[in-house]
Amino acid sequence: MKVTEVTNTERGESIIGRCREIAGCTDVPGEITRTFLSPSMREVHDLLRGWMETAGMSVEVDAMGNLRGLYPGLTLEAPRLIVGSHLDTVPNAGAFDGVLGVVLGIALVEELRGRHLPFAIEVVGFSEEEGVRFSKPFLGSMALTGTLDANMLKLKDVHGVSLGESIRSFGLDPAKMPAATVSPLAFAYLEMHIEQGPVLESAARPLGVVEAIVGQSRLFASFTGKANHAGTTPMRLRHDALAAAAEWIVAVERIASARDGLVATVGNISALPGAGNVIAGDVATTLDLRHADDAVRLAALDKILLEAQQSADKRGVEFAWRQTMDQDAVPMDGALTNLLEDAVRAAEVQPLRMMSGAGHDAMIVATRLPSCMLFLRSPGGLSHHPAEAVLAKDVAAALTAGMEFLSLLETRHTKMEDKE
Amino acid sequence: MKVTEVTNTERGESIIGRCREIAGCTDVPGEITRTFLSPSMREVHDLLRGWMETAGMSVEVDAMGNLRGLYPGLTLEAPRLIVGSHLDTVPNAGAFDGVLGVVLGIALVEELRGRHLPFAIEVVGFSEEEGVRFSKPFLGSMALTGTLDANMLKLKDVHGVSLGESIRSFGLDPAKMPAATVSPLAFAYLEMHIEQGPVLESAARPLGVVEAIVGQSRLFASFTGKANHAGTTPMRLRHDALAAAAEWIVAVERIASARDGLVATVGNISALPGAGNVIAGDVATTLDLRHADDAVRLAALDKILLEAQQSADKRGVEFAWRQTMDQDAVPMDGALTNLLEDAVRAAEVQPLRMMSGAGHDAMIVATRLPSCMLFLRSPGGLSHHPAEAVLAKDVAAALTAGMEFLSLLETRHTKMEDKE
Repeated sequence: MKVTEVTNTERGESIIGRCREIAGCTDVPGEITRTFLSPSMREVHDLLRGWMETAGMSVEVDAMGNLRGLYPGLTLEAPRLIVGSHLDTVPNAGAFDGVLGVVLGIALVEELRGRHLPFAIEVVGFSEEEGVRFSKPFLGSMALTGTLDANMLKLKDVHGVSLGESIRSFGLDPAKMPAATVSPLAFAYLEMHIEQGPVLESAARPLGVVEAIVGQSRLFASFTGKANHAGTTPMRLRHDALAAAAEWIVAVERIASARDGLVATVGNISALPGAGNVIAGDVATTLDLRHADDAVRLAALDKILLEAQQSADKRGVEFAWRQTMDQDAVPMDGALTNLLEDAVRAAEVQPLRMMSGAGHDAMIVATRLPSCMLFLRSPGGLSHHPAEAVLAKDVAAALTAGMEFLSLLETRHTKMEDKE
Repeated sequence: MKVTEVTNTERGESIIGRCREIAGCTDVPGEITRTFLSPSMREVHDLLRGWMETAGMSVEVDAMGNLRGLYPGLTLEAPRLIVGSHLDTVPNAGAFDGVLGVVLGIALVEELRGRHLPFAIEVVGFSEEEGVRFSKPFLGSMALTGTLDANMLKLKDVHGVSLGESIRSFGLDPAKMPAATVSPLAFAYLEMHIEQGPVLESAARPLGVVEAIVGQSRLFASFTGKANHAGTTPMRLRHDALAAAAEWIVAVERIASARDGLVATVGNISALPGAGNVIAGDVATTLDLRHADDAVRLAALDKILLEAQQSADKRGVEFAWRQTMDQDAVPMDGALTNLLEDAVRAAEVQPLRMMSGAGHDAMIVATRLPSCMLFLRSPGGLSHHPAEAVLAKDVAAALTAGMEFLSLLETRHTKMEDKE
């Protein structure tokens, strides 16, 4: 397929402009905050619907509030490529997390300029990925994959409104949830998303091809020593919970740094009684541990727990922990990811194969469809922040790579049809 | 001097009983909380006044609310030994911190059974040592030493009541403060106090002789890195403020443990943004550092600050600090302390020479009078807690040692008079 002139920065800038226009749809004036099925989400739907229909797509909103625009293939029974990302945001967010992938999906269809392919393209704007309103992420992609538990409709937001009620208030019917499941004609999923980290920038690459979404362990960890007078208690008679926790935090950093791709974070800590002249008796911390290889992650967790126990024992301090998340890594589809990498090269960009350290809708969709993810460089590695940004030239490169991806898929499908 | 039968546990128990009776005088029913010149302080004065007068003492309350009972010497111009401690408490305190020293002082006079010595004994119950009401400790002993700044009368409590007003409300006259200054006849100060730490207990000694009250440095220390996504930020690209702080906390513990008598404590810590899945960008901590030798303390502080800077630099994190206290050590009087040690031995107790890690009225009085301190073992090292305790046999031993101290002082004074 001939790729039209999309490599110029202007095209990137117009996509960024659309993201910024969407950012104006917010629950909280003065910041970008858009939660599941809020009034501002309807404004976003209206904007996107307009662009989608102009591009020749038929648009509907499914029972979970996912916006779905279908650009037909050459035949009614043509297989279907799903291109998507999410439309909701964290509180006080940036303009690109999620939204950019949906706007890029529409731009791909626009670039076809009315030409139809041997496969249809369905662009999905997921209604809920961040999990802000119901403390439960991925509701949109779970509806698409048909993995939503009926009990989830009873989830309540902070105002006591249930998920089911919120869907009805938006003018949708929760009973129609089964129809939200992705078409059996769907054969692949592509998600384009900002990296939300510094890896591409530090490697001076505009685009990354995601091999897997890392697995995660999350824990609460506590150290219980003995609060005592900071002046009258000699060092050798202390049971300092903070010193025990501190030695462990250093060990966590050391263990993670020793293994490529492993990240481990103690992000929160509190010490009681918390007075400058009292030895800390109780320290509560969190651990967040991620790696693309579950065996590596679990081995690191064992090592980290052993270090905590040793640091505690040394000081006559008790160590306890409770796991709050143990989520396996989700690999992207190998063949599709190779195709995406080829597409990036065809766009004259040197791709970086990398892991996604954060969760994405692709994690959920991958349970049902061969899936792949394209990352765009995040300036400063910044995300979930009003200053979140993306470079126009990187957006243009992503669009070009996306068109090359369509082109490679078209070639593949044509070959398959020839064989038949 | 013949020491009467005071070594028995019964005498110790009766002194403990008096402390518990005083503990019933509280601002907050159900706990022991007695602040500067509260109504419950008047109840304490009434109790103590009764015991003092029965023992042959004349009693008054000075302009700062210190209760002062005078047991005359053989002559009107006799030199005067001051025996004292404080009557106020921290919130939800134990029954012995401070109070025990005053009750023991009265018990010493009682043990004289009307006999008079070549020196008078003035027992002082200081009105304010903990600094709870006006956030300013040692008001009582500062009045005694004449080191009170006139501006201090303007200090306000949380209800907006000034120190001056609180004195007037108690029926006292702040204008008479100069008369609160200790008599020029005073020649020595003895304070008996629970250790409030575990040193005596761990050494299996009932009594300790204090060589010095340690000097203190206190600091706020902060580490400023960069908050970032725990999943998407590789270890080598982090600026983790908590990891920097943690390595420093371990160094603080190591530096203090390497030097006898040095104690260093990071008692408080907070991390922002404080989410489990976000690298900490800002960490605020405290440091409390104490040693009896100021040069040792200041050298340790230099080392600790250097370690903080190195731990921060290593991670591209900023380190900053602000000193909130830099208080020199206060040595007790050498000759008087030797005499006290001899008295403890004469009471057939093996004394432990030790430092006081906490501040005491003796710290203030020592600026005016040769001072010494006797520590009583604290079971479990516990203090500032309702379970604070003292053993009856240790109280009896302290009383015996106190009587031996009077006896040695009497011998010394008789010799001096012989020389004249």
